[in-house]
Amino acid sequence: MNNKYFKVSIENYIAEVSFNRPDKANSLNEDGWWELRSTFEALHENNEVRVIILTGEGKHFCAGMDLQVLMNLQQFSTDCEARKRERLRKFILDLQASISSMEQCRKPVLAAIQGSCIGGGVDIISACDMRYCTQDAKFSIREIDLGLVADMGTMQRLPTILNPGFMAELAYTGRNVSGKEAQQIGLVNRAYENREEMMENVRGIARTIAAKSPLVIRGTKEMLLYKRDNSVANSLDVMATWNAAMLMSRDIMEAFQSYMEKRPPVYKD
Amino acid sequence: MNNKYFKVSIENYIAEVSFNRPDKANSLNEDGWWELRSTFEALHENNEVRVIILTGEGKHFCAGMDLQVLMNLQQFSTDCEARKRERLRKFILDLQASISSMEQCRKPVLAAIQGSCIGGGVDIISACDMRYCTQDAKFSIREIDLGLVADMGTMQRLPTILNPGFMAELAYTGRNVSGKEAQQIGLVNRAYENREEMMENVRGIARTIAAKSPLVIRGTKEMLLYKRDNSVANSLDVMATWNAAMLMSRDIMEAFQSYMEKRPPVYKD
Amino acid sequence: MNNKYFKVSIENYIAEVSFNRPDKANSLNEDGWWELRSTFEALHENNEVRVIILTGEGKHFCAGMDLQVLMNLQQFSTDCEARKRERLRKFILDLQASISSMEQCRKPVLAAIQGSCIGGGVDIISACDMRYCTQDAKFSIREIDLGLVADMGTMQRLPTILNPGFMAELAYTGRNVSGKEAQQIGLVNRAYENREEMMENVRGIARTIAAKSPLVIRGTKEMLLYKRDNSVANSLDVMATWNAAMLMSRDIMEAFQSYMEKRPPVYKD
Amino acid sequence: MNNKYFKVSIENYIAEVSFNRPDKANSLNEDGWWELRSTFEALHENNEVRVIILTGEGKHFCAGMDLQVLMNLQQFSTDCEARKRERLRKFILDLQASISSMEQCRKPVLAAIQGSCIGGGVDIISACDMRYCTQDAKFSIREIDLGLVADMGTMQRLPTILNPGFMAELAYTGRNVSGKEAQQIGLVNRAYENREEMMENVRGIARTIAAKSPLVIRGTKEMLLYKRDNSVANSLDVMATWNAAMLMSRDIMEAFQSYMEKRPPVYKD
Amino acid sequence: MNNKYFKVSIENYIAEVSFNRPDKANSLNEDGWWELRSTFEALHENNEVRVIILTGEGKHFCAGMDLQVLMNLQQFSTDCEARKRERLRKFILDLQASISSMEQCRKPVLAAIQGSCIGGGVDIISACDMRYCTQDAKFSIREIDLGLVADMGTMQRLPTILNPGFMAELAYTGRNVSGKEAQQIGLVNRAYENREEMMENVRGIARTIAAKSPLVIRGTKEMLLYKRDNSVANSLDVMATWNAAMLMSRDIMEAFQSYMEKRPPVYKD
Amino acid sequence: MNNKYFKVSIENYIAEVSFNRPDKANSLNEDGWWELRSTFEALHENNEVRVIILTGEGKHFCAGMDLQVLMNLQQFSTDCEARKRERLRKFILDLQASISSMEQCRKPVLAAIQGSCIGGGVDIISACDMRYCTQDAKFSIREIDLGLVADMGTMQRLPTILNPGFMAELAYTGRNVSGKEAQQIGLVNRAYENREEMMENVRGIARTIAAKSPLVIRGTKEMLLYKRDNSVANSLDVMATWNAAMLMSRDIMEAFQSYMEKRPPVYKD
Repeated sequence: MNNKYFKVSIENYIAEVSFNRPDKANSLNEDGWWELRSTFEALHENNEVRVIILTGEGKHFCAGMDLQVLMNLQQFSTDCEARKRERLRKFILDLQASISSMEQCRKPVLAAIQGSCIGGGVDIISACDMRYCTQDAKFSIREIDLGLVADMGTMQRLPTILNPGFMAELAYTGRNVSGKEAQQIGLVNRAYENREEMMENVRGIARTIAAKSPLVIRGTKEMLLYKRDNSVANSLDVMATWNAAMLMSRDIMEAFQSYMEKRPPVYKD
Repeated sequence: MNNKYFKVSIENYIAEVSFNRPDKANSLNEDGWWELRSTFEALHENNEVRVIILTGEGKHFCAGMDLQVLMNLQQFSTDCEARKRERLRKFILDLQASISSMEQCRKPVLAAIQGSCIGGGVDIISACDMRYCTQDAKFSIREIDLGLVADMGTMQRLPTILNPGFMAELAYTGRNVSGKEAQQIGLVNRAYENREEMMENVRGIARTIAAKSPLVIRGTKEMLLYKRDNSVANSLDVMATWNAAMLMSRDIMEAFQSYMEKRPPVYKD
Repeated sequence: MNNKYFKVSIENYIAEVSFNRPDKANSLNEDGWWELRSTFEALHENNEVRVIILTGEGKHFCAGMDLQVLMNLQQFSTDCEARKRERLRKFILDLQASISSMEQCRKPVLAAIQGSCIGGGVDIISACDMRYCTQDAKFSIREIDLGLVADMGTMQRLPTILNPGFMAELAYTGRNVSGKEAQQIGLVNRAYENREEMMENVRGIARTIAAKSPLVIRGTKEMLLYKRDNSVANSLDVMATWNAAMLMSRDIMEAFQSYMEKRPPVYKD
Repeated sequence: MNNKYFKVSIENYIAEVSFNRPDKANSLNEDGWWELRSTFEALHENNEVRVIILTGEGKHFCAGMDLQVLMNLQQFSTDCEARKRERLRKFILDLQASISSMEQCRKPVLAAIQGSCIGGGVDIISACDMRYCTQDAKFSIREIDLGLVADMGTMQRLPTILNPGFMAELAYTGRNVSGKEAQQIGLVNRAYENREEMMENVRGIARTIAAKSPLVIRGTKEMLLYKRDNSVANSLDVMATWNAAMLMSRDIMEAFQSYMEKRPPVYKD
Repeated sequence: MNNKYFKVSIENYIAEVSFNRPDKANSLNEDGWWELRSTFEALHENNEVRVIILTGEGKHFCAGMDLQVLMNLQQFSTDCEARKRERLRKFILDLQASISSMEQCRKPVLAAIQGSCIGGGVDIISACDMRYCTQDAKFSIREIDLGLVADMGTMQRLPTILNPGFMAELAYTGRNVSGKEAQQIGLVNRAYENREEMMENVRGIARTIAAKSPLVIRGTKEMLLYKRDNSVANSLDVMATWNAAMLMSRDIMEAFQSYMEKRPPVYKD
Repeated sequence: MNNKYFKVSIENYIAEVSFNRPDKANSLNEDGWWELRSTFEALHENNEVRVIILTGEGKHFCAGMDLQVLMNLQQFSTDCEARKRERLRKFILDLQASISSMEQCRKPVLAAIQGSCIGGGVDIISACDMRYCTQDAKFSIREIDLGLVADMGTMQRLPTILNPGFMAELAYTGRNVSGKEAQQIGLVNRAYENREEMMENVRGIARTIAAKSPLVIRGTKEMLLYKRDNSVANSLDVMATWNAAMLMSRDIMEAFQSYMEKRPPVYKD
């Protein structure tokens, strides 16, 4: 992986992906968005990776969209208003697809958030499996102050995380949410004292996950995603078919055997 | 607007709508329900209004259905049992439509709740965008004690706000929920010391919203409503089409320009 | 009811059902699963029962699947891999149906959880209407450590109860959740000091529910279940049709009359 | 009813509604669209009407949108591109609502089509319950030749009537469909020799329907509409609740009694 | 199987089930409905059966509900109107479940229809996989003339078979449809000259199906049922998981081998 | 485009894509499937193409899956049964995606079918917008005779084209359907005398489509696809938003102007 806007390191089945444009508060320009996608599509395929931590270099997690991208919207202009909008629509769909690559990546993605996480940064963390932050983190659906509706997933995925009353308050006011409040309203699982403590804990969780059966982790992510948009009855049916195919595995054997032998299981993939 | 059961005042793009039958604990008789609808349909169209606060005159927010309405159910009697039920069904649909008018109103509705909010009052606040209350507020799905299932939205919208365990507990027992507990379980965004503090804060939030682009606020409400009942994938697709039409606006220009000129934006509508 | 793995007592319209295999930490073997279903199907029909408390004999609530069941999976082996999986699929569907019987039982089910509630125990409480526990309770989606995806409802129903960030954390790590944390993340409505306090309070809630109109309780459970998997608009429509049929009842009369006569209502069924 | 663009006559529980702008091939200008809605909303409420025939005065059924309406699109112009599109969107939604009023009208609507039925005329007949035509009728999704996607229902309702292969062919090519072909592909139930034969037969069907229980006809329309957009399982459940409320009627008694007495039933409403 | 209202014979993997109350035109009384269910639940489990033909003894296929059942509706009366309707609702759900047992039976069900197929008979054939008839067959949604909405599946399943225009015409008028018209509108796959020809052909189709892999037939029925109520995208996903479990079978081997050996395949189950 | 298994020619905005492995009856090996996808993804982007004809070189349209692909299934074997099935599932999803590329291609795809169209060939034509064939064409869901459930779309898309009775008959029996019957049951729009007549007519339809506004054609395909899997109400709402963005185009102007000037419109893209 030849990355420019993201730093990627892989060790012990854990990938750490960092926004790497600290001088711009880790905002993403157009190339950054496409790199986000290629990065997660590569991690999706990489057998050396079982869990991913997404964090930011420097003081901030991610300041969202580089305003230059918005300024470039005139690139879509043609002499036909409708075609301009067709192109704009395609551009938005492409940006959405970039973020959706994190959701379609079959490994859990843990966001570790320090400093600012605003605008597009919120779209991004909404597509992660779990979110953790520092107490001095600062979240904001800033798009309202840019004069536009956040269109890369915040309005679609954040309502599955937040109480609708808070979702509305944050979306309408664009106000800042501190790390502490983020924990209270369920935007993150936990707010830690400082970055060191956060990274230590998040890495600990990642290590725990990396030690589990990667087959089961993949099935779990798939089933949770399916449930999110389907009825309980349909999801139960799909679950039964899934395990008809995937239950009897080398890993279930290893789980039993290691338990008998009183040793930690070792899952090969 | 020639209102009888609601007091409406409009200033600085903020409408304050108050239940105005304090001697009856702001319960609603049949005419009150129809006025609720006409009031919100008018606010929906009124360009001078960008955000709405719903509150109650006097000690209580709203005691729900005036029992007289239930006593009048015999009005549906005919010599045909089925036609009686057809009429009853239409009456319930009409009451539901009255409350849904708040949801279909394209401006955010903030409920500011003091004192009792019971029965139909809960149906009503469930259809608001955000809910705030005083610590001495008292909520109750009282219908269970009237011998009927709440049928104007509580059973349909409150489950999108509350944890299902609490939803069930409140629906089955009809017990009182204090302002403090309401905050803990997410029924309201915040419980304030007293009415003054609540109104000051809610008006502050309303002012913040009124200062945003009304175009973006409308789009935000529309998209959140769409997401509530649709899959993430479908909602992302609709979002892209929406912004293909609505992104390039006078307001996005004003947002940029005011930012450059270091002045607050002024959005005309 | 001739029960072996569950103890059932019925008094004052309240059924107490206890896992009754304390020497095995109330884990369920195959017969136990089928008895769970027959028990709840009987309670569903029993007019002497208006509300159900599910708890465990001994130190623990339920340790989930008896490992013997997993060991017996070879029972599905045949000389055709596909047919083996067909049988396995049917077995999973049957286990799911066992748990779904609690959801389809038209009376509220309150789980009162002490000690361990792990693996299949979590699938079970996810299908209850409300959950209460002791502070020393311990929850865990243990399946991850058995090398399999929990397939009896945890992945389908728990996401309707928990914030998705916590859902993912618990599913991926299998870590223990204490009674106190369970309350914080909404897995239970309340964590009590100890078993006595819990049982006293849960029985109190059960008595409250048993004193309500059983007709209305049934309608409430039905409507909440319908809403869980349907849009608000569809659910409102169904609600109106429901009350067209069920609103005008003996119970609504009794509610009014008892209120007039200043006595508690007595609902016959 | 004070109609201008539609002629309405009511006799023997049958309403005949005719497009009444024959000099313009019964195309609809803006006022015509609003009158379509008010007409069907009135028929919805009118107890003297049990079934509706929609046909056209003069040579043609309906030539669709008066091009003047498209020419007036500049009425939506403002100095904000997004607001222009907001208004346009509202205008389209209003036109759609006009046609949906036929679907929401609780009486069966039978289209009797002679001559041209093009553009908006196809949107309209797609929302009728049944369609009949003369052999010289001519259908066309003409919007493709106006440079726009038909947006008042053709793309949404016609696919529920036609095979998708024909739907696509007609939508992409805008070609004419004769009365005979319309019958072959299921666009109409039957193509008759000429207008007299068609009207005689359609009036016969209308008389048959008018002689049935209006209560049952209403329930039938409601249930078919519900099924169109819902699963079989959900629709069966709703059906059971519906008949719980509506089965035991004066009409079921009359049906039995008239059968016993060997006379035609007489249903009062 | 100890049947009274149905005659069941099994030979060469083909079950023939016949309505067996010819003196009552094969109408079903209450016990008949419950026997329909028990019959199909038994066939569902019976490994000697791979395909089912449903037909009628005597002159008619099935005259639907025995009117005695409707006359017995007073059995639901109690002193509470709502409870009466609760019971009625349960009764309807039970009747529906009886018919749904044919759909849930994992073997194809072929209806072979002669003479009258009216009322409940139409509900029944709507739940079959395929329908064939004689030219003198006569179909009618007769419920409209009994003063009630058909509530056992006709309104839910027939719209997936018929064009909506014909569905509405038949449901509103209750008119007779001949075997020939039934073929033209797709209500049956084919109308045969007479009963002998029909049975010969339907048995031929049944023999063809009985000679196929029963595993694949089961999967096919399951997947078609899933698709009926789900989106294409979801159904494709479920299909892939299904075949992940079920593709690699003894039957696929036998198919190949028999092809190589130029002999008909023999599938054991 | 450097194609091996497909021949592609582009002229006058019409692309003709032909299966090009006539010596193998145009069956597709693994590389053929991937080329199908890359071909349609390229056509999706190619502005010189407005409509696509899919046909076959030689005597047959497409014999479906090259059996070699099935023989290669052992490639998925590993020492873990579950992982084998994970890989198989991914392989099926990839094959499905290959066919879905035709649906996602924003230009209409017309299948012109001669000779055999069996197995995978049916999956492919089910994803086309329209289907035409010769009278000697022969269709068959042959997978049943290979001992497997067709898993690339036939079971998911063909039920939206065929009456469920025929869908079941063809899927369960695998029998041949002639061109003539294909027309009768709606599998194709029309069956022509011979290949020359078919190609002449299909090219005529393609020319008609190529002369329309490509913007409107794209919108039409998008809206029909959206409707297929969504309710009428949701689809109407999406339609209104779509035209809010796309109605006011250069093409609507050209349509008007050319009409005024009595000349054919010329749409640039």
